[in-house]
Amino acid sequence: MGAAILPDLGTEILIPVCAVIGIAFALFQWLLVSKVKLSAVRDASPNAAAKNGYNDYLIEEEEGINDHNVVVKCAEIQNAISEGATSFLFTEYKYVGIFMVAFAILIFLFLGSVEGFSTSPQACSYDKTKTCKPALATAIFSTVSFLLGGVTSLVSGFLGMKIATYANARTTLEARKGVGKAFITAFRSGAVMGFLLAANGLLVLYIAINLFKIYYGDDWGGLFEAITGYGLGGSSMALFGRVGGGIYTKAADVGADLVGKVERNIPEDDPRNPAVIADNVGDNVGDIAGMGSDLFGSYAESSCAALVVASISSFGLNHELTAMLYPLIVSSVGILVCLLTTLFATDFFEIKAVKEIEPALKKQLVISTVLMTIGVAVVSFVALPTSFTIFNFGVQKDVKSWQLFLCVAVGLWAGLIIGFVTEYYTSNAYSPVQDVADSCRTGAATNVIFGLALGYKSVIIPIFAIAISIFVSFTFAAMYGIAVAALGMLSTIATGLAIDAYGPISDNAGGIAEMAGMSHRIRERTDALDAAGNTTAAIGKGFAIGSAALVSLALFGAFVSRASITTVDVLTPKVFIGLIVGAMLPYWFSAMTMKSVGSAALKMVEEVRRQFNTIPGLMEGTAKPDYATCVKISTDASIKEMIPPGALVMLTPLVVGILFGVETLSGVLAGSLVSGVQIAISASNTGGAWDNAKKYIEAGASEHARSLGPKGSDCHKAAVIGDTIGDPLKDTSGPSLNILIKLMAVESLVFAPFFATHGGLLFKIF
Amino acid sequence: MGAAILPDLGTEILIPVCAVIGIAFALFQWLLVSKVKLSAVRDASPNAAAKNGYNDYLIEEEEGINDHNVVVKCAEIQNAISEGATSFLFTEYKYVGIFMVAFAILIFLFLGSVEGFSTSPQACSYDKTKTCKPALATAIFSTVSFLLGGVTSLVSGFLGMKIATYANARTTLEARKGVGKAFITAFRSGAVMGFLLAANGLLVLYIAINLFKIYYGDDWGGLFEAITGYGLGGSSMALFGRVGGGIYTKAADVGADLVGKVERNIPEDDPRNPAVIADNVGDNVGDIAGMGSDLFGSYAESSCAALVVASISSFGLNHELTAMLYPLIVSSVGILVCLLTTLFATDFFEIKAVKEIEPALKKQLVISTVLMTIGVAVVSFVALPTSFTIFNFGVQKDVKSWQLFLCVAVGLWAGLIIGFVTEYYTSNAYSPVQDVADSCRTGAATNVIFGLALGYKSVIIPIFAIAISIFVSFTFAAMYGIAVAALGMLSTIATGLAIDAYGPISDNAGGIAEMAGMSHRIRERTDALDAAGNTTAAIGKGFAIGSAALVSLALFGAFVSRASITTVDVLTPKVFIGLIVGAMLPYWFSAMTMKSVGSAALKMVEEVRRQFNTIPGLMEGTAKPDYATCVKISTDASIKEMIPPGALVMLTPLVVGILFGVETLSGVLAGSLVSGVQIAISASNTGGAWDNAKKYIEAGASEHARSLGPKGSDCHKAAVIGDTIGDPLKDTSGPSLNILIKLMAVESLVFAPFFATHGGLLFKIF
Repeated sequence: MGAAILPDLGTEILIPVCAVIGIAFALFQWLLVSKVKLSAVRDASPNAAAKNGYNDYLIEEEEGINDHNVVVKCAEIQNAISEGATSFLFTEYKYVGIFMVAFAILIFLFLGSVEGFSTSPQACSYDKTKTCKPALATAIFSTVSFLLGGVTSLVSGFLGMKIATYANARTTLEARKGVGKAFITAFRSGAVMGFLLAANGLLVLYIAINLFKIYYGDDWGGLFEAITGYGLGGSSMALFGRVGGGIYTKAADVGADLVGKVERNIPEDDPRNPAVIADNVGDNVGDIAGMGSDLFGSYAESSCAALVVASISSFGLNHELTAMLYPLIVSSVGILVCLLTTLFATDFFEIKAVKEIEPALKKQLVISTVLMTIGVAVVSFVALPTSFTIFNFGVQKDVKSWQLFLCVAVGLWAGLIIGFVTEYYTSNAYSPVQDVADSCRTGAATNVIFGLALGYKSVIIPIFAIAISIFVSFTFAAMYGIAVAALGMLSTIATGLAIDAYGPISDNAGGIAEMAGMSHRIRERTDALDAAGNTTAAIGKGFAIGSAALVSLALFGAFVSRASITTVDVLTPKVFIGLIVGAMLPYWFSAMTMKSVGSAALKMVEEVRRQFNTIPGLMEGTAKPDYATCVKISTDASIKEMIPPGALVMLTPLVVGILFGVETLSGVLAGSLVSGVQIAISASNTGGAWDNAKKYIEAGASEHARSLGPKGSDCHKAAVIGDTIGDPLKDTSGPSLNILIKLMAVESLVFAPFFATHGGLLFKIF
Repeated sequence: MGAAILPDLGTEILIPVCAVIGIAFALFQWLLVSKVKLSAVRDASPNAAAKNGYNDYLIEEEEGINDHNVVVKCAEIQNAISEGATSFLFTEYKYVGIFMVAFAILIFLFLGSVEGFSTSPQACSYDKTKTCKPALATAIFSTVSFLLGGVTSLVSGFLGMKIATYANARTTLEARKGVGKAFITAFRSGAVMGFLLAANGLLVLYIAINLFKIYYGDDWGGLFEAITGYGLGGSSMALFGRVGGGIYTKAADVGADLVGKVERNIPEDDPRNPAVIADNVGDNVGDIAGMGSDLFGSYAESSCAALVVASISSFGLNHELTAMLYPLIVSSVGILVCLLTTLFATDFFEIKAVKEIEPALKKQLVISTVLMTIGVAVVSFVALPTSFTIFNFGVQKDVKSWQLFLCVAVGLWAGLIIGFVTEYYTSNAYSPVQDVADSCRTGAATNVIFGLALGYKSVIIPIFAIAISIFVSFTFAAMYGIAVAALGMLSTIATGLAIDAYGPISDNAGGIAEMAGMSHRIRERTDALDAAGNTTAAIGKGFAIGSAALVSLALFGAFVSRASITTVDVLTPKVFIGLIVGAMLPYWFSAMTMKSVGSAALKMVEEVRRQFNTIPGLMEGTAKPDYATCVKISTDASIKEMIPPGALVMLTPLVVGILFGVETLSGVLAGSLVSGVQIAISASNTGGAWDNAKKYIEAGASEHARSLGPKGSDCHKAAVIGDTIGDPLKDTSGPSLNILIKLMAVESLVFAPFFATHGGLLFKIF
């Protein structure tokens, strides 16, 4: 067995230090972005000629546009978007607050009632001979960790929105100096979001563990059972972020497009459109706050799932702190690796031309994965005893440290493969999207059929990648292996988020350029950044879905252990009906979220029409539209429409657990996982492909593309129909499915003791 | 225990007699249909004034169209369609022949090799103490029953196509006397198809059992193990019928519409369109031959699965023939019940107005279900001992006869519920389809989003119905319960097929009326029949999918028993990777079948364009198009395009079974079942809803519908786009998924002994 090379003290320093480094690096990036002044005065001071050429030649001077006026307008629009974003978030936080309190009480009551709120020590569930802290303690501490997870996710989401709405106008201004400058500003801002989230998530979890240890002392099983609330808190926020945010994004987008582009024939991002600010806010709400909360949820859950299983394995039983905190050490090293990787994009190399953007982003993926593989090897060598045992459904399983390294590595590389396959099927640099664009020749119908078929086909390799990583990690280290494989996929979360957040910032930058009446050449640069952003958004979603699948399986395993079931036999009626109903839930959920977008969009369409019909001079541009009301309507509608799908997710585990019991609930979790992951991947890729097929035709960068164009041609109209259909698939119902499969799993884990004792009422009656 | 009331001799008479009655009834219906003369001479003989008024007043006389000329044209077109259908079938049979021989050899080699082709008796797999016939015998007899199942399916499909292409023009002619007369002709022809298939299926199976018994004597385990080939033969044909036929249907349809309606702006079914005959043949190929082979496969498989399990339960061990043949007795009574039910539509009541059609068809469903419930009660009372034991994964389980009645009844009523839910979501008499039609106001994109959401939502209740019938039958009588529940759902197959086959016959009738230049009022009557046919086609698909889910589960259970696995634990790596990859297969398969339609359609489009551009006077109607070449191109393309998806279905069990072993294969079967059934239902209903939303706008039967119309309005154009997308979903990829889940299950069952002994090579190496 032997002890880990890294002493406990080393661990207790390494983790917080890495977290703090991450936060510092984020703030430093924010500082660099802030150097882009949102004022017209040219910075004549000597040090202004910084290496990055903040004094380069401006497009405006070429085109003789009044520089001062343009910058003031940019600042105004940015302010409006920032206010819109804040008003959305604060309205959402009101509802989140109510939900958090209600759900916290529910957790406390359910878990407290497991032993009738007794305060006397109880026999540990995993080992009857030992005494553990009373169920009441688990209830209290689970509730506390639930609130902690929720608040940390909210704070990270808020900061992410702040930096995004701080950087968008600055990216526009930098675009005047060239696409490279704009890219660095957008990418640095994305990095702020990524590092803040990763570092916050790690730091708060680490602090919570240490605080809980004061009470729990050596009862690590109880401690880490209570910690699981942290994952539930994170995922609950993702419900608001992904589902609520996803509906908001599309309601604003459809509201703006249907009335603006279709009825009033004014271009996208035209300042006269009352919904334009809500639309730009939407880009941030969906892809920044939504994606951030989603990945935070996965990150928190995979850490908690690993810690729970570790606490009842040899690490926990022998109180080996370093080995116990192996998941956190992996994440800590992940922050350092991502920091190094980011420098490649912002400092070591500089982007000169548009066609270098996508390769630069892809390099980020490869570099971070390669470096991280080395990092994980080092961590596995120093932080783990050469061999140890892992709890495996009632029995301890022998595992070697190199095996655990392989578990993390296989998750990491599966993430990369999913990223590249997603890119292949959504980027218009490759044939699948070009074929979809070509199918527009025979109209919208063939475009839709080809798009759906592409989405289905894009599922094949990612599923094999997930299956292989499951098989390797499951075989080597049972549920612990799965949890650390998920963690491996998420270990480069900072870079993943930076790449992902960079897209909406560029999208906004383009919108601001349009609204501020800047030269159309600026818009071309930001559009190029945005197109690359589309692909990276799809890659980010690939990561999110891949890690959601692994995390759900890890949580599912942890749930089964906690509910003390040893086998989940498909050939029993209770499990099979769970499996087939579970496989149906993603369809029910998708039907709800798609309808929610429809209803919320309708309210926006009515408001935008009302303003156009009632505000005199709006079309002529002499009067200003009432942006704030549109933001409010879209916010209220999205939160109201979020309730039915949200209820389906939150109530299913409770209803199934209580009425049918833990076997059926296991079937439901397994069924919804294997079915949900397919729809999530295909919906996101289909939507991404349609979006980029339209952009392919609009950009007309190749002979083939020009033969399908230009903008307004029949082919283009067919492509726009595909894009409009794809929007809710890729921004709302597809990504929200991650939440369905994760949140049901983590909720089942937290309530497992309750279901095990009181569940299955129906079968007890009949 | 006690013996069954019905003596063995009674059983040996009852089954064949019911089968013969079914065949006789079918031929009698054919005779009645043949009384509609395809010649202009009015039948002046006294007995002509038969009750059904074959002498009623003709529309032609009102509109002064030359009666003689119209009838001759009808006969010509019918002949062209019939020739087209025959040429498709015979081309298909060439490929089927090659496939059957190759696969028969494969079965023989694989099964023979289980005991090295030894001819000495071997220990029975389910009870080592007993001696069973040698594996070589199983190999030979399995191969024979495989060929028998294939040929019976082919013959039934061929006869179905014959009557359909015999009755279509006759339905057109009868439409001149009123919608009621046209309905009876179409419905009688559908009944011919339904009863021939049900009766043939039963009779051939019964004869095969008796022939095999000569060799097998008392070794019922061996006998019924060999009989399973019958199901595999049926399902293999369904692969050609459903997948090949489905691709043919859409290739012809898209080829005709894209060039005819879109490019040349000529109406549907215009005789100048070279693809018009291929299109009309396609209606029959898909919905008659395809649906027939699909339901025949399910029927044969559920009977075989039940018989296999029964043979190793108390019925088989105690050689109680009547109880043993309980599944066949249920089917026999089913034929009698359907016969009685059909009379309600053809003789007891007569349809006067269009709005009575759908209710009449719905009555058929209700009457057959109610009567069959009584029938099953009687059969369960007379044919079963009051209590008996059923083989349940290694142990015998006590079961009561009333419990088995409930198993069959729950399957029967689940089928009815699925039928009604499907109707609610696809008929334009209800709000879901009307909402989809309404969403066309904001364009094709919203129509597609609403249509997809409808399809997802329409899955919920059918899945609960399937889950409940699985839970009840599984709990009462394990795998035998599931098999007889599937049989319950299929026991009214004759009526189900009659209702289903009636649709394409009316569709054809409308095409012929158009081509023969008859009064547009005839077309209105046949369109009314066709619209009701759309809904019943969707109901038929609901039955097909529901029974496919139950049948696959029964086969899955039988496979697990034969592969001597006792539990399929989701929490083992081998099973879970099978589950997640299995859940992906329906997506891979759908991507392939959707692309196949695209490629085959493209070939048709090119040929139709070539003829329009090269045949002088074609547009002016002075020259005749070359129909036969179009039929040939569509046939060759569909069979060629069918190979990739067909290979995926046939090879998956072999590859997984040999490389990964029976546990992973169990995971694949379970995963593909629970995932495939969702897509199959949602794809079929989405397609059906779009089709009827378009027809709703075209018919303009209500204030709301007229506000969306007329034909050619923006709303209508958006609806046409939805319908074009829906076609391949509801006619090709949706229904073909039944074959994916059934054929993989039955193939695994047949090869189970081989996989159990030689499978899992990868794990043996590593």
